[in-house]
Amino acid sequence: MKKKTPARILISSARTAADIRYLCGAEPPETAVFIQKGRTKKLIVSEMEFSRMRRSVNRGIIVLHPKMFGSSWKKGPADWIKKAGDEKRLHVTADFPLGIAEKLRRAGYRLIVSKEPSCPQREIKSGDEISAVQIAQRAAAIAMKTAIKEIASARIGKEKVLRCGKTVLTAEAVRAVIHRALFDLDCTALETIVACGPQSADPHERGEGPLLAGEPIVIDIFPKHASGYWGDLSRTVCRGSAPAELKKMYTAVKAAQAATLKAVKAGAWTDDIHATAAAELDRRGFETDTVNGAPQGFIHGTGHGVGLEIHEAPRISAAGHQNLRAGNVVTIEPGLYYPDIGGVRIEDTIAVTRAGFKFLAPCPKKLEI
Amino acid sequence: MKKKTPARILISSARTAADIRYLCGAEPPETAVFIQKGRTKKLIVSEMEFSRMRRSVNRGIIVLHPKMFGSSWKKGPADWIKKAGDEKRLHVTADFPLGIAEKLRRAGYRLIVSKEPSCPQREIKSGDEISAVQIAQRAAAIAMKTAIKEIASARIGKEKVLRCGKTVLTAEAVRAVIHRALFDLDCTALETIVACGPQSADPHERGEGPLLAGEPIVIDIFPKHASGYWGDLSRTVCRGSAPAELKKMYTAVKAAQAATLKAVKAGAWTDDIHATAAAELDRRGFETDTVNGAPQGFIHGTGHGVGLEIHEAPRISAAGHQNLRAGNVVTIEPGLYYPDIGGVRIEDTIAVTRAGFKFLAPCPKKLEI
Repeated sequence: MKKKTPARILISSARTAADIRYLCGAEPPETAVFIQKGRTKKLIVSEMEFSRMRRSVNRGIIVLHPKMFGSSWKKGPADWIKKAGDEKRLHVTADFPLGIAEKLRRAGYRLIVSKEPSCPQREIKSGDEISAVQIAQRAAAIAMKTAIKEIASARIGKEKVLRCGKTVLTAEAVRAVIHRALFDLDCTALETIVACGPQSADPHERGEGPLLAGEPIVIDIFPKHASGYWGDLSRTVCRGSAPAELKKMYTAVKAAQAATLKAVKAGAWTDDIHATAAAELDRRGFETDTVNGAPQGFIHGTGHGVGLEIHEAPRISAAGHQNLRAGNVVTIEPGLYYPDIGGVRIEDTIAVTRAGFKFLAPCPKKLEI
Repeated sequence: MKKKTPARILISSARTAADIRYLCGAEPPETAVFIQKGRTKKLIVSEMEFSRMRRSVNRGIIVLHPKMFGSSWKKGPADWIKKAGDEKRLHVTADFPLGIAEKLRRAGYRLIVSKEPSCPQREIKSGDEISAVQIAQRAAAIAMKTAIKEIASARIGKEKVLRCGKTVLTAEAVRAVIHRALFDLDCTALETIVACGPQSADPHERGEGPLLAGEPIVIDIFPKHASGYWGDLSRTVCRGSAPAELKKMYTAVKAAQAATLKAVKAGAWTDDIHATAAAELDRRGFETDTVNGAPQGFIHGTGHGVGLEIHEAPRISAAGHQNLRAGNVVTIEPGLYYPDIGGVRIEDTIAVTRAGFKFLAPCPKKLEI
């Protein structure tokens, strides 16, 4: 009889590094263990990373390497945790590695998986953090204006293909213009979206090939500044005259963003805010539905937190229910997506205040260019 | 009595995304679940990512979103896995999230933590993969030559400070030159090292501030090409005359790299290769030791695999014991680090062949410039 092989599963995640970065004030190396007991905070890294991390972490963080407490790098995290001499009852995050958990449990440890995020305080940004996001957001706005200028100055060639001189203007070329502008502002961006026509109907399609007149071009720029903080900004433009239906979509999305922003202030419920955006789009006749297996309409949430991660808490969507609080930094980004027309998304990153909100970087909104 | 709070633990990791990328042929979104049962490979993503992923994955990969099998995005991975209807015995990776594991176990699942990596085949690169690393490595070599030219053409000013015209030449400025060159070659780099003098004594210190003549400058460039594959290249240079001891270190590291490369071929043991590098440095009088709690000498491994991750298997160090195989792509990077002199590292990325190895990109080795 053939032996039955179990199925195998892989799950992607990259949450913890940002939490450790936040708690220690310095980007952790690839492998790092952070242990907090009351006010005592320890960071275990390799001997090679030891001096550098000790120099760069916040005051009060105790940086250790395994040899300092009778273990070795080779023995791995379960051994370090055992030898670092903490108690045998530990709170761990939901994404704590199962392999290490099993080793600890075999050694008599009791692990309690926290239902709460390990750094809920990351949701409330300090003034310095808001400034850091603002720097990234301003860079995004500068890059956006540069990109829009490039598209606006393109000539409309045969078959509506945009041209700069003799060259066809492509998504790749505009992305390069954006990345260069960001680079000069100490930011990096990997997945910038410049998606034209049918490509723009898919909110996360990066976009490729020639850009065309009379079609929506969704540009979504999310740079990470050298500080570690991100910004996030989207605009939709159309070179030349836009078809009537696209204009209507644009007006609806712009109105939905304005209505949503009016609802934003400390104390507002995240699902109510999302409902405001959805209602405005619905009221203007734009339906959200699944057609032939593909979702269309307003098919994503209204926004998400931005900070040390590009997507973090709080989420503003139908799925979440929490109060916004002063110091939240979130995107407000309603959008509409239809396979036959394309997509429209307008996104700004804002800081929530007690009375309302503050734009982190101004950037014009205009469809036809 | 005060309630005793358990300690909490965070561990950073980001392995799985590269495995999923390899198995599916496309970069997975932030949250994705990959399930393989025999020849059947399923990738579960959000409804919003569904169309894009279905277009970009390899043939034969079944892309699903939770609604397609009666779950929803909100219910999360444990529910998707249950509803996706696979058997209740699953192989999972050691970094499988504990929170999801506990939910599955409560639902009667048996999870077996694999001791083996989930994609051991990633260690053996195909011709296409070697070419992809080569493109990144050639970009690194071009950027390296540009950086070295910049330093070589600098004037030696007062107190040995390097100057370009009236401006002080800094680590930041050279890093910008490198990043711009990489950018023009479709590569991105975040943590490029340009570390001068005492900074270079710490192998992972990025470096900052003015560059000085007569001091070692370690330049370590590791770009990620648009293909997803990385390159890795380090050189050490000194503007003007190098002190005698630095020259001796450089000669030793260069000899250690040459001796090590001679030992590289399919079948060679990784720890033997590391021992070859260590022995050559030792023989030339350079000791590795911990002085005042800080390690010095040859304080890191001789090399690591390069592919979809910048650090991957096989590792070439004292800690590992495996045979090199044809198709391995690894760095060979002996180095010496002393707080009072600084660091010297020479690193190339090579492809292992049956008879020996192949450099992926040539780049000159010269200390004094």
